[in-house]
Amino acid sequence: MAHIKLLNEELPGIIGLMNYRPETAKPLNELAEILLRGDSTLSSGEREMIASYVSHKNECHFCHTSHGAAAVAHLGTSLSLIDDIKNNFATTSISKKLRKLLNIAGKVQVLGNKVTEDDITDAKNEGATDREIHDTVLIAAAFCMYNRYVDGLGTWSMPDNEHYKEVGEKLAHEGYLSF
Amino acid sequence: MAHIKLLNEELPGIIGLMNYRPETAKPLNELAEILLRGDSTLSSGEREMIASYVSHKNECHFCHTSHGAAAVAHLGTSLSLIDDIKNNFATTSISKKLRKLLNIAGKVQVLGNKVTEDDITDAKNEGATDREIHDTVLIAAAFCMYNRYVDGLGTWSMPDNEHYKEVGEKLAHEGYLSF
Repeated sequence: MAHIKLLNEELPGIIGLMNYRPETAKPLNELAEILLRGDSTLSSGEREMIASYVSHKNECHFCHTSHGAAAVAHLGTSLSLIDDIKNNFATTSISKKLRKLLNIAGKVQVLGNKVTEDDITDAKNEGATDREIHDTVLIAAAFCMYNRYVDGLGTWSMPDNEHYKEVGEKLAHEGYLSF
Repeated sequence: MAHIKLLNEELPGIIGLMNYRPETAKPLNELAEILLRGDSTLSSGEREMIASYVSHKNECHFCHTSHGAAAVAHLGTSLSLIDDIKNNFATTSISKKLRKLLNIAGKVQVLGNKVTEDDITDAKNEGATDREIHDTVLIAAAFCMYNRYVDGLGTWSMPDNEHYKEVGEKLAHEGYLSF
């Protein structure tokens, strides 16, 4: 049970919180929609991977599983790729550019000032644009917010990965403004 | 100089980033406006204190100084109170309720799952409502985002506290939608 009395205690994770406080839900969902499904030279699958990776580092089960499932729904890949990225993206079969962007996202998860000039240069050398670097940093930063919101209020999450498949497909195909 | 080429490199901190990417600036500013200046039983000064305290823990000079100055502008108090809160709010002359809410915000800054039932009970025993606890957690979580966005992209900030007075007064009296 959440730390506060929600309007509908059956709604898990951030969904129950957004139902409780629709005024803040609006900009929170708009931000996610732009960052994860808006125009970008990074695919939505790649961006959901960054979101899932950061959420995993923040120990937020509801978020890392939901966004891992969204990445799978976008990419038509298996959940095992997402698990590989969470466990050790340095050895996962992904593009060199995405690997360097995940490195930046991982630094942002710790603290903004952990990102070094070398991290940025490494990403640029693999073809990352300024806009891609900007959005990677903001996605990682935003999930440091969503994750803390979900867990800081003690919301419940489904324990079984299977239940997230439907959530992932809804996020991927209908988007964040449908909540 | 920031890690990416901004449109106007003279704009400091988050202001330069919002100018670079206005699409994401919109929900970011709307969220801050609702959380810090919207209807609440917590005063804007108290909410800016929470924002400044979390930003200080995240080592974000631009944010903790700007929002400290905004708290000062709201409260008509001296900067020394804000410095006291950053250094040790447990001994600062503030309400018991705010002290317990700052305790929750400090836990959220570390990670969402660090907030305990006891932290929540302590705040409720000092009169904190569910809505106040919700907003405290979301303010703390949101500043974990803003701080990482500002520092993760290596933006510059004015070194001298004096320059933030004007920023703080603008945030307090004109708000976040004026940017």
